[in-house]
Amino acid sequence: MNIIISGAMGAMGQAVASNAAARGITVVAGVDREASDRFPYPVFGSFADCGLSADAILDFSNPAALPGLLAFAQEHKIPCVIATTGMDEAHQKMIADASKVIPIFFTFNMSLGVNLLCALAQKAAQVLGEGFDIEIIEKHHNKKIDAPSGTAIMLANAVSEKTPYTPEYVYDRHAVRKRREPNEIGIHSVRGGTIVGEHEVIFAGTDEVITLSHSAYSKSVFAVGALKAAGFISAEGRSPGLYNMNDMISF
Amino acid sequence: MNIIISGAMGAMGQAVASNAAARGITVVAGVDREASDRFPYPVFGSFADCGLSADAILDFSNPAALPGLLAFAQEHKIPCVIATTGMDEAHQKMIADASKVIPIFFTFNMSLGVNLLCALAQKAAQVLGEGFDIEIIEKHHNKKIDAPSGTAIMLANAVSEKTPYTPEYVYDRHAVRKRREPNEIGIHSVRGGTIVGEHEVIFAGTDEVITLSHSAYSKSVFAVGALKAAGFISAEGRSPGLYNMNDMISF
Amino acid sequence: MNIIISGAMGAMGQAVASNAAARGITVVAGVDREASDRFPYPVFGSFADCGLSADAILDFSNPAALPGLLAFAQEHKIPCVIATTGMDEAHQKMIADASKVIPIFFTFNMSLGVNLLCALAQKAAQVLGEGFDIEIIEKHHNKKIDAPSGTAIMLANAVSEKTPYTPEYVYDRHAVRKRREPNEIGIHSVRGGTIVGEHEVIFAGTDEVITLSHSAYSKSVFAVGALKAAGFISAEGRSPGLYNMNDMISF
Amino acid sequence: MNIIISGAMGAMGQAVASNAAARGITVVAGVDREASDRFPYPVFGSFADCGLSADAILDFSNPAALPGLLAFAQEHKIPCVIATTGMDEAHQKMIADASKVIPIFFTFNMSLGVNLLCALAQKAAQVLGEGFDIEIIEKHHNKKIDAPSGTAIMLANAVSEKTPYTPEYVYDRHAVRKRREPNEIGIHSVRGGTIVGEHEVIFAGTDEVITLSHSAYSKSVFAVGALKAAGFISAEGRSPGLYNMNDMISF
Repeated sequence: MNIIISGAMGAMGQAVASNAAARGITVVAGVDREASDRFPYPVFGSFADCGLSADAILDFSNPAALPGLLAFAQEHKIPCVIATTGMDEAHQKMIADASKVIPIFFTFNMSLGVNLLCALAQKAAQVLGEGFDIEIIEKHHNKKIDAPSGTAIMLANAVSEKTPYTPEYVYDRHAVRKRREPNEIGIHSVRGGTIVGEHEVIFAGTDEVITLSHSAYSKSVFAVGALKAAGFISAEGRSPGLYNMNDMISF
Repeated sequence: MNIIISGAMGAMGQAVASNAAARGITVVAGVDREASDRFPYPVFGSFADCGLSADAILDFSNPAALPGLLAFAQEHKIPCVIATTGMDEAHQKMIADASKVIPIFFTFNMSLGVNLLCALAQKAAQVLGEGFDIEIIEKHHNKKIDAPSGTAIMLANAVSEKTPYTPEYVYDRHAVRKRREPNEIGIHSVRGGTIVGEHEVIFAGTDEVITLSHSAYSKSVFAVGALKAAGFISAEGRSPGLYNMNDMISF
Repeated sequence: MNIIISGAMGAMGQAVASNAAARGITVVAGVDREASDRFPYPVFGSFADCGLSADAILDFSNPAALPGLLAFAQEHKIPCVIATTGMDEAHQKMIADASKVIPIFFTFNMSLGVNLLCALAQKAAQVLGEGFDIEIIEKHHNKKIDAPSGTAIMLANAVSEKTPYTPEYVYDRHAVRKRREPNEIGIHSVRGGTIVGEHEVIFAGTDEVITLSHSAYSKSVFAVGALKAAGFISAEGRSPGLYNMNDMISF
Repeated sequence: MNIIISGAMGAMGQAVASNAAARGITVVAGVDREASDRFPYPVFGSFADCGLSADAILDFSNPAALPGLLAFAQEHKIPCVIATTGMDEAHQKMIADASKVIPIFFTFNMSLGVNLLCALAQKAAQVLGEGFDIEIIEKHHNKKIDAPSGTAIMLANAVSEKTPYTPEYVYDRHAVRKRREPNEIGIHSVRGGTIVGEHEVIFAGTDEVITLSHSAYSKSVFAVGALKAAGFISAEGRSPGLYNMNDMISF
């Protein structure tokens, strides 16, 4: 498979490139705010300057680059994986419109592993039902200012769709003296050192515990997820439309 | 729901009874090799003596009790959960025949959690595909004589159905100096103390690891699984047939 | 070694007896509120009735039995392991007085493992010093009404003695948006199912994490700890005095 | 504190530099095979060219650089931390000789965390004694060719010094049907993905398990360990002599 990387000179763009070869994927070109010949592939200053085609475009740039990217992709009928963050509603509308012409993969969390964890946890909540208490532990570095992590909330929301009760998220138990209610979902935010990101969903029943966890050790996981998505989105016969990780994890 | 426990005086029969109330399930009678009035419910010496009906029969007895149990269940149209071990082919044939008349739930591992772990691991193997190495660690008490555990093999076989390669199970790496092959599934048997049973399936990719695990702390997990199965098998409109845990975990 | 169990008919007294044999320890007698011949050893209704001696007395009874026990122990010069809870100051004074005559082992937490975890965590805090963030996770069953557990506090206090800063215990991070302060010790109380008790101390540094953990699966751990203490307290040449777990874990 | 980095242009030399500032440590100079002005500090082509002094020298270069380094260090009375690998007996003799004049810190594993894990595991083995089964699990990336890891062997050897029995290392249990012997130490080598290095020592007793673990996420841990060692070796009043991690972890 041949790909074009949008945002080729950024950290994520380079992570995509360095993970591509091991998966038999060739980077034919990059696009970024300025042209560069410091890479093993040509980097163009805009999609207008890009004279090459590919099987998929992977976008880790910024929202401002979106119009040029979508115009190019529609003109050449190239499926896109859009992993750029910070898209507002207008950008999302542009993506939705373009997806009528070409297949577009768009998600807020490009890690295949995290999305899989989410799907597995939801399935577990559905199968286990009553009698299993759900708790979530997330661990991140000591510089993270928000708690709980967005992924922890994503996990809590995912299991909540399938619990036989209406969950209440609980963040602190030291202030009260009382038993755990069956509909609590405890969410615990550990902070320390340089931990990149760990998430653990615990289902504790009568004399048994099921634990599902994901650990990320670098931002490579987003690059790997995007490359997997590129393979999915450019599969032969893929219809135009808007796709996300759930389409790759369909149970 | 009302149930009859076959093998009521055994350890598992009593575990079923002690876990029933908390789930709103009433034990109306027990059956065992001899009658007893030492329980809060009558225990009869055989199904022939049992004058009571129920919504389901839970069987944790022994294969010799099977003919009497199945005759009674078919006569009164009572769904059965059969958790007795040691059934030979003749017994399995009897169960299959009876399942044409009544719903019968029959499995070799009555733990809902372990069966769920198996299904989740299989799903993960399918979604993650290439680029994730699979390893299994199981931990049991120091008196267990076989290794790996039957459950570890069940897990390895389950993921093997979905890997994009033909797996080779590896039990020892200290004897050779070589890289891990992508199609290896390492299986590690930890033995120590009184550990009841822990199983962990690891999917290690590029800078991320997904771990799915189950810990059992007592044999209650089999009782709880059987009670869940009783609810499933006696659901209104359940057709005659042979069911197992996969039917409860259908994705 | 021969022992007398005070509180022989209670759950902990029986746990001591059932764990003794495997350690080559013989129960020569029990004492409880009433005499009994239902045990493999004579159970007397009071120490006054007990005509037998032993190498150590293990006490899992109640504070009211203390005076009789200490009188008997001093008269026969028998070292004591006192694991009874609920002792007030007057009781503790009685114990201190008796310890001038005989060796007495007295602790609030009879688990050798938990006390060891505490000592190891303290040592780790001392060695690692600056640059490692400390967090504690404890997990208990859903019926526990207090949080954090007494053991979690014991652990936090133990490491606090050796940190190069004055720690602040933090129980909830979801309410504020700010970086972790270096002197925080996050304490997280997971509640679910029937978990007996798990404690984990995490030291997270730059690209490395050290984790020390203890899992208890039954109250046997207190019986085992008491039997280890009995061996310690009755060692030849042991001087009269008051001993606790730290004396067994001396680094 | 001011330091000179020997091997400044190598990956480890640069890791030392990038971890120094956060610890209030200043790199005043580097030494490597050739001079360079591409760093925020001067890099000289040999110690003979280095006109600057410092509180400590950190050496992550190669054995060939040792004579020049030791001559310079002895001349200027600068304590050294030697983390270069591949030293033969002649090199070790040179180090020992120089340590009569200046303090020298020399170890085969510069990770403070791993050395601490080792010391804690040894202490646990000593305190727990009989009745706790020891097992070691190590996890590394799929390109590692040796198993078990050197660190796993270091851990096994450390606990073996304190067990009340003569341990037998066991790497494979699937081939035999028998109970675990009390003197076994099971060593399990998990291989997968890009795991940098995880080590776990398990002590499994009657209904309790103590687990001590270390996870490394990058080679930074060696840089951090070396910087800690630099602080230790250059402490005021440190006598000439040969030091290693155990001196920093003294219990």
